[in-house]
Amino acid sequence: MPSITIEGPKINDIEKKRSLVKELTGAAVKAYGLPAQVIVVLIKENLPDNVSVGGQLISDRKNT
Amino acid sequence: MPSITIEGPKINDIEKKRSLVKELTGAAVKAYGLPAQVIVVLIKENLPDNVSVGGQLISDRKNT
Amino acid sequence: MPSITIEGPKINDIEKKRSLVKELTGAAVKAYGLPAQVIVVLIKENLPDNVSVGGQLISDRKNT
Amino acid sequence: MPSITIEGPKINDIEKKRSLVKELTGAAVKAYGLPAQVIVVLIKENLPDNVSVGGQLISDRKNT
Amino acid sequence: MPSITIEGPKINDIEKKRSLVKELTGAAVKAYGLPAQVIVVLIKENLPDNVSVGGQLISDRKNT
Amino acid sequence: MPSITIEGPKINDIEKKRSLVKELTGAAVKAYGLPAQVIVVLIKENLPDNVSVGGQLISDRKNT
Repeated sequence: MPSITIEGPKINDIEKKRSLVKELTGAAVKAYGLPAQVIVVLIKENLPDNVSVGGQLISDRKNT
Repeated sequence: MPSITIEGPKINDIEKKRSLVKELTGAAVKAYGLPAQVIVVLIKENLPDNVSVGGQLISDRKNT
Repeated sequence: MPSITIEGPKINDIEKKRSLVKELTGAAVKAYGLPAQVIVVLIKENLPDNVSVGGQLISDRKNT
Repeated sequence: MPSITIEGPKINDIEKKRSLVKELTGAAVKAYGLPAQVIVVLIKENLPDNVSVGGQLISDRKNT
Repeated sequence: MPSITIEGPKINDIEKKRSLVKELTGAAVKAYGLPAQVIVVLIKENLPDNVSVGGQLISDRKNT
Repeated sequence: MPSITIEGPKINDIEKKRSLVKELTGAAVKAYGLPAQVIVVLIKENLPDNVSVGGQLISDRKNT
């Protein structure tokens, strides 16, 4: 605690994940004034047929 | 925002997913008076050995 | 299970909440082929200074 | 409802999952004074490259 | 990490919360083989007009 | 989508919230290569008697 959960599409580049968790953690450290060690980040990767925006699946949008 | 997350078992039929996100989105549009474009839906599919009801895994219930 | 969580702004009209949970539940019943009794809905109400879109708090947007 | 979601690494031993959901459910029964039948548990299994503590991915920590 | 989130009604008795988090933590310690210090528990308290079961708000059920 | 949820203690300083959501959003923009406009952040503020670490409520820890 604090913990950060980020829901998004798949991230294939591990370097992108490394930067992402570092920056999210840094933002939390500043906001809460707590040491980085207590900040947990969860990256949640979602398939395009499990996410919709405006009532349309992302996978259907891609087919357009 | 608003966002809707639905946790359930796997949905194999893509048509069922299409209808689901459309209906969930429509319900949110009416409740919040916001345009569909800002409504996000996340479908979360869970394996039967990762869900329990009444302290019993769904996968064990199926074995009965 | 299944359970639906909807994150949005405050809903002041209880009738809107009644319709919302009824419609969300109905959508889940159709998608999963399960009885309404097992469908749980959680409405989460968020303050405008706890939500941001595009990096800007909703409460700041309203001030514009 | 109530529902318990537990986010952690993968659990390979199904017996561990059985005990886990039974104990989590029992704890909720006592806290809320509700029958076990209404308590739902979701186990969420996360890959080590999707979790960070202290700004470092668990998968990178393991490499050390 | 691991973290446990429990969604339920309000718990008025702080002793009940103390026992709840202790038991949830103990269950996670056994399941993951990790020290208690890394286990986080979040108790989420929901109002009866923000939860529905079977398409009916809990607050309406109470009125019956 | 993507959406970021951050669970932590109360943040009393609105400037801290402004910086937090801006930085979280910026991190997501870089990771996903998506415009800031589609990134949603939810700040969740938790009371110290609703969070435990190591099986002990934060509110009890403060009393020490």
